[in-house]
Amino acid sequence: MTTANLSTTLDLPQPYLLFLGDTTEAGFAKTAFGLRDWAPEQCVGELACSPDAISLGLPKLTPAQAYAKGARSMIIGVANMGGRILDSWMPSLIAALEAGLDLVGGMHTRLVDTPALVAAAERHGRRLIDVRTPPRGIPTASGRKRSGKRLLAVGTDCALGKKYTALAIWKALKRRGVKADFRATGQTGIMIAGSGMPMDAVVSDFEAGAAEVLSPDAAPDHWDVIEGQGSLFHPSYAAVSLGLLHGSQPDVIVVCHEAGRNHVLGMPDYPLPSLEETIDMNLRLGRRTNPSIRCGGVSLNTSKLSESEARALMAAESKRLGLPVADPIRGGDEFERLLDRCLNG
Amino acid sequence: MTTANLSTTLDLPQPYLLFLGDTTEAGFAKTAFGLRDWAPEQCVGELACSPDAISLGLPKLTPAQAYAKGARSMIIGVANMGGRILDSWMPSLIAALEAGLDLVGGMHTRLVDTPALVAAAERHGRRLIDVRTPPRGIPTASGRKRSGKRLLAVGTDCALGKKYTALAIWKALKRRGVKADFRATGQTGIMIAGSGMPMDAVVSDFEAGAAEVLSPDAAPDHWDVIEGQGSLFHPSYAAVSLGLLHGSQPDVIVVCHEAGRNHVLGMPDYPLPSLEETIDMNLRLGRRTNPSIRCGGVSLNTSKLSESEARALMAAESKRLGLPVADPIRGGDEFERLLDRCLNG
Repeated sequence: MTTANLSTTLDLPQPYLLFLGDTTEAGFAKTAFGLRDWAPEQCVGELACSPDAISLGLPKLTPAQAYAKGARSMIIGVANMGGRILDSWMPSLIAALEAGLDLVGGMHTRLVDTPALVAAAERHGRRLIDVRTPPRGIPTASGRKRSGKRLLAVGTDCALGKKYTALAIWKALKRRGVKADFRATGQTGIMIAGSGMPMDAVVSDFEAGAAEVLSPDAAPDHWDVIEGQGSLFHPSYAAVSLGLLHGSQPDVIVVCHEAGRNHVLGMPDYPLPSLEETIDMNLRLGRRTNPSIRCGGVSLNTSKLSESEARALMAAESKRLGLPVADPIRGGDEFERLLDRCLNG
Repeated sequence: MTTANLSTTLDLPQPYLLFLGDTTEAGFAKTAFGLRDWAPEQCVGELACSPDAISLGLPKLTPAQAYAKGARSMIIGVANMGGRILDSWMPSLIAALEAGLDLVGGMHTRLVDTPALVAAAERHGRRLIDVRTPPRGIPTASGRKRSGKRLLAVGTDCALGKKYTALAIWKALKRRGVKADFRATGQTGIMIAGSGMPMDAVVSDFEAGAAEVLSPDAAPDHWDVIEGQGSLFHPSYAAVSLGLLHGSQPDVIVVCHEAGRNHVLGMPDYPLPSLEETIDMNLRLGRRTNPSIRCGGVSLNTSKLSESEARALMAAESKRLGLPVADPIRGGDEFERLLDRCLNG
């Protein structure tokens, strides 16, 4: 059995038209903003169904105009309370299918569970792609060592910058001329990359297998930079993190943390593990499928600190841990040292 | 949010009529033999659809006779290559539905994907229950500490006696007059217990939540004895094991191992961890949701050794580890010491 079967991952037709619905608050359009910022070359324009909706500053296009400019799918880049598909969106969604665009959604309500969309997609020979739905045919993990290099972003908790860190490292490697792919494991990441694996939606028995499929055999000097999920210390989501760690077989981990966060998000009774404990546990468990795993450094989210506070904290932590500590958003020499250590050990 | 919602687990109508199909080899009827041995009071009889089929030595009953004797479901207690439902079985399966019995299956081919069975079940108002299909509405784990005591069987590998160990401990606790429930996490265990959670079929994000639902709040002196799954060191299935460990919040683990097994079943490149390593890793990770977790001892499957070899090995291992080491199948003083330590620390 080979795990090098990329067709087992989700694949999205690119480039995109970004749909904003009637959203007036930027906070509900995080996915659209993330796509604009991280995959600008894949975003040909934006479409709203209300004149009051927010704008991304991209060209405002009808689905037909977007198709003519090369777009091949329309991404629902907004969320709302409850994750529903609103009736007011339907004319725009159906117009997109008519114009030849596939529809891509990441909401709790699946596109394929909306009969009017299913009918329109069938009529026009288009696909409805729910990025929360894993592809079929994921195998159980084989444990077979794969060729190529892998870096996995891990963390002390959820929602503190693992996706951002992986994207920043991937872009920086490309700038340095290193062959690299970003491997997405969550819905926004999948839309940015145009493919990936929604790890939290995979059945547990196949979790490590899904991670194997996500980063197949590659050239010896090629790096897969893999978006992390959850934390080995998270009382709800550690299963996702361990399956991803075992199946990814990372050569290098980068440990992500947010300065000042001291308990699990939304769980005040659960203190966060220390950075040392997080590094040690990830290395101990990761060694099972890759005995040469090592820690490349720490990615510290310092967005709540001033520039001088952040630089001082990173320097102190770096000295304490004996590892590069950097905030990819601030960049600078610290981040370059982190990259050096990831690449060269 | 409360996790003490037993209706979120699978529940099977008991007692059972056991269906043997046309199976002539006992190896294909493991489930039926397991039910006869572990839940004899729930097995009113057996039904085959061929005179050449094997027998469990139970009364041979028609579905109508079984219903009259109290049976409320018929369990498909046989498997075949490919896990299919054979055409030759259909008259018996439909007769069971007609007689008022629900149908319970654990094969890869789900009962609900067989149109003739769906039609017959609807016609007679009966249920088709696939024990590989998790119940709906499993929440994500809350991490909230629950009342009552919990024991979890963990292991160095798959398929070396975790279910057997949990069942043996549960029966022994009942014999001692301790309030206890067996909590099943795999298909055969679920059929034996009449309820449970197919942990390996749960979506990863809900894995720990499923374990929380499985062993709800209980009286302070009540023990849930929880069937383990996989191993934290298994390259394919560790995600299942970690979600189960976190959500179960065990007070006590019993580590299961098979004497002489030195690599992961089917994976010769993966040596098994030592017992010390297995104990240490389970305690370290389990401490996250239950800081007072401890190891009650080792359950050693010595089925390939002679009685004298087995007793000598258990004594040596017990001395080396400073823990009770017992083979539940052999029983004896070692097993009583293991139980003492599980209950009393």
